[in-house]
Amino acid sequence: MGLLGLGAVLKSGGGLEVSDYDAIISINIFIALLCSCIVIGHLLEGNRWVNESTTALVMGLLTGGVILLVTNGANSRILVFSEDLFFIYLLPPIIFNAGFQVKKKQFFRNFMTIILFGAVGTLISFVIITLGAMGLFQKLDVGPLELGDYLAIGAIFSATDSVCTLQVLNQDETPLLYSLVFGEGVVNDATSVVLFNAIENLDIGHFDALVLLNFVGKFLYLFFTSTLLGVATGLLSAYIIKKLCFARHSTDREVSIMMLMAYLSYMLSMLLDLSGILTVFFCGIVMSHYTWHNVTESSRVTTKHTFATLSFIAEIFLFLYVGMDALDIEKWKLASSSPKKPIALSAIILGLVMVGRAAFVFPLSFLSNLSKKERRPKISFKQQIIIWWAGLMRGAVSIALAYNKFTSSGHTEVRVNAIMITSTVIVVLFSTMVFGLLTKPLLSLLIPPRTGPNTSALLSSESVLDPLLTSMMGSDFDVGQPSPQYNLQFILTAPTRSVHRLWRKFDDRFMRPVFGGRGFVPFVPGSPVERSAPDNQLGTVTEAENS
Amino acid sequence: MGLLGLGAVLKSGGGLEVSDYDAIISINIFIALLCSCIVIGHLLEGNRWVNESTTALVMGLLTGGVILLVTNGANSRILVFSEDLFFIYLLPPIIFNAGFQVKKKQFFRNFMTIILFGAVGTLISFVIITLGAMGLFQKLDVGPLELGDYLAIGAIFSATDSVCTLQVLNQDETPLLYSLVFGEGVVNDATSVVLFNAIENLDIGHFDALVLLNFVGKFLYLFFTSTLLGVATGLLSAYIIKKLCFARHSTDREVSIMMLMAYLSYMLSMLLDLSGILTVFFCGIVMSHYTWHNVTESSRVTTKHTFATLSFIAEIFLFLYVGMDALDIEKWKLASSSPKKPIALSAIILGLVMVGRAAFVFPLSFLSNLSKKERRPKISFKQQIIIWWAGLMRGAVSIALAYNKFTSSGHTEVRVNAIMITSTVIVVLFSTMVFGLLTKPLLSLLIPPRTGPNTSALLSSESVLDPLLTSMMGSDFDVGQPSPQYNLQFILTAPTRSVHRLWRKFDDRFMRPVFGGRGFVPFVPGSPVERSAPDNQLGTVTEAENS
Repeated sequence: MGLLGLGAVLKSGGGLEVSDYDAIISINIFIALLCSCIVIGHLLEGNRWVNESTTALVMGLLTGGVILLVTNGANSRILVFSEDLFFIYLLPPIIFNAGFQVKKKQFFRNFMTIILFGAVGTLISFVIITLGAMGLFQKLDVGPLELGDYLAIGAIFSATDSVCTLQVLNQDETPLLYSLVFGEGVVNDATSVVLFNAIENLDIGHFDALVLLNFVGKFLYLFFTSTLLGVATGLLSAYIIKKLCFARHSTDREVSIMMLMAYLSYMLSMLLDLSGILTVFFCGIVMSHYTWHNVTESSRVTTKHTFATLSFIAEIFLFLYVGMDALDIEKWKLASSSPKKPIALSAIILGLVMVGRAAFVFPLSFLSNLSKKERRPKISFKQQIIIWWAGLMRGAVSIALAYNKFTSSGHTEVRVNAIMITSTVIVVLFSTMVFGLLTKPLLSLLIPPRTGPNTSALLSSESVLDPLLTSMMGSDFDVGQPSPQYNLQFILTAPTRSVHRLWRKFDDRFMRPVFGGRGFVPFVPGSPVERSAPDNQLGTVTEAENS
Repeated sequence: MGLLGLGAVLKSGGGLEVSDYDAIISINIFIALLCSCIVIGHLLEGNRWVNESTTALVMGLLTGGVILLVTNGANSRILVFSEDLFFIYLLPPIIFNAGFQVKKKQFFRNFMTIILFGAVGTLISFVIITLGAMGLFQKLDVGPLELGDYLAIGAIFSATDSVCTLQVLNQDETPLLYSLVFGEGVVNDATSVVLFNAIENLDIGHFDALVLLNFVGKFLYLFFTSTLLGVATGLLSAYIIKKLCFARHSTDREVSIMMLMAYLSYMLSMLLDLSGILTVFFCGIVMSHYTWHNVTESSRVTTKHTFATLSFIAEIFLFLYVGMDALDIEKWKLASSSPKKPIALSAIILGLVMVGRAAFVFPLSFLSNLSKKERRPKISFKQQIIIWWAGLMRGAVSIALAYNKFTSSGHTEVRVNAIMITSTVIVVLFSTMVFGLLTKPLLSLLIPPRTGPNTSALLSSESVLDPLLTSMMGSDFDVGQPSPQYNLQFILTAPTRSVHRLWRKFDDRFMRPVFGGRGFVPFVPGSPVERSAPDNQLGTVTEAENS
């Protein structure tokens, strides 16, 4: 527990003295490190190799090393990886912010491709890694691994971590690429966790078609109920804020309701044994589509930046944490009786990860390009390489799942488990550091950076809210629809497009009047909204044509 | 630990299933209750009796009752009061926001009076309650209480809780009253905690002049070092943000740095065994004076509302928590062998609290009025009554201190301790509910509400930031200084005023050029600051004359 298990703080016999200095020291170190990471990350912003994640990881490693040296390897309290901290406190703000800030237009326009990559792709990757591990691990004589363990390994190493790449990609310059990498990352997170869950509950003894069907059924059930819960909570928050018509001075109330409801959706999902990641992601999308437009201007600025800030802090915290945890001495000792094995294992896993990802990115891109109309941008080969590369990194989700599978409460006594944990840590560190460092050069090689004035900077100097509106609406405004062409592409595209049109009608006629949204907020005289009326009208016009 | 001890969540043998449903359920209940409190508080806003604190308290009581019924009095896990939660997570945002949003001009103009009420007044109240308890408790045959216990009781019941009153007072209509009640509340929080700490470390066996001197010395040491640490951290944050010149798109970084540094100041203070409350309060003041002016416009809006929101949530959480904890069955059982005693004790304590407060409010107000020049507003008798009333409520600080003194980790087996805890809970509930409910009617009786257009609403419709600037500068702008009058008032007032003038010079010449502040931020072309240039110039002018 480390940071959270502050049970002994302030509970000494006499007075409010702090008895558990360890916990207080931990918190102080962490906050100081977070601050330094932010400052260093800012200073290194122009650098073509480093980004904030790598900085945090390196600083975590360094601090872990210093702590190990200071305590002579005895004290590893600050180092124990806690799944709670990860799943209850760090992941929800990151995923919620992802949903809240996503360019909904781009996301939903590429919805099919994203689902294809995120769900089907992850399954393909899972199958390949599982089969590969079953075939290759046995030569290494790692220890007794069962079918369930191999399946779990497949799920663990199917969980990608695209944060590094997203930090480098520019949302305005390469909207298609960004939305694909981003969307796939979220769906992949959810898929791999749901997959892992389903595997753990699988009765492997009687593996037949019925079990497989059951598995698929459970997978779909989790997917849809989780999404539904997120949408429902988001709509409820929109309805409450619209009905109550909080006055202008109630920004605190509005922001509180939004924050609390977002977290409630995640915790409800946990309570109902669903996928919190999916729930909170869709809650974020619904909140940015309805709730966000029902609040005052200052609430909008505040929520946008607060959610982004919390997510930012959580991300850095995470990388720091992984870096520190990597040096946890206990598991290294246990695995060190055969030091070569974890390294060989990691190499095999890294190879499998690369093959497994290539096995779905290129075929699925081809499929996705087939279904696209000629006017719409296709995924070029260079872009396919970037998508492939973006998902090679393994991160905190892999570590959390590995700890869940191979340890109990962060500790293990079994050698094979210790080897699996160390291998996971090596894979995560290597992929994040080496692949992560190569991302910027690779990108600037494949996509030459544009010169000339930065368009987004010109846009946003007009108003504080303008960039926000732009980001909420999506940056591309192709209005005209060419006449339908009766060919394969059209047949494949038509359903998505008519669904989108139907949704627009439904949204305008039934949803917005009830739940609010842009152009449907009751006008409060003298409120700050009045100032931005031209923006709003503009918004309504473009929206009617675009959304 | 309840909410924080999530150790067992997600750590079941197989998969990511949630095993410790209790913790998840607790979090869900708490978040749902927080949302309902906000909504109900909003709906009842026009009501002249109720406010958000009482709503939260009542809802906490109701929920505690329901949980007791559902679990047949067995499960009290959600009810255990945790000092950690209080001192590490809930108190810092409340106090920091207090410092951040305080009208510095009003606060420093009335600095002497505030210190008089907050520090000297609390000490007077402490002495009277201690002596009264020593005299009156012995007749009740409560049990064996030592001198140290009586001193602790004095400190516990000297800690006021003026949140209720502040929710009702209007900062714009009665600035003097607001700043006095508010400032006293903060200084009182710090004084009582420091006092309690000092008592616990006191060697009562050898109580003589030297020990008393030592006590006073320690008290002063804590006071000044804590303040210094807060100021230093605040200045550091201002310096970092000014030096780094974060670009326009780095709002997340700026907000992160401000949040993290604020919390760091509190945790550092805990680490160094100082008063975190004082530290974080002064850190808030310095941040709003320097750091806040160095960041971008959207960062300003965001930080202002984020800090207010976090404080708002923490406050409601606190009252919910106290309400739930009140029904903790264990201590009631232990104390119920003599059910009349806690009630008699509570009545005595309430009487002592009222007397103890009257004993310093009226004399000190007289003193403070003496030292005021004729032009400056004096504290009228009606205002003195309100100040007296505002500090009668006892709140979470009292409960936290009582738990610290009379239990170990929230549990006690000794009857006299159980009686003291139940008495504290009764005093807190009674004073918050009954006195709290009477506050609004009392205020509207003593200060008839103004009619006509709300000036602050007119002001703030001009710009999002205007009300903020106003609130940061203080609402009163009396510029001219009349010629000095050589009388008692002048002699008493002169030091404060010349100190203020010296400070202004020092601030303009040395502090602002280094740490930034209004009018000293480097101008970034094309940044949102450009838009608010007229505001800024106005700010600089009024500031040069006023600050």
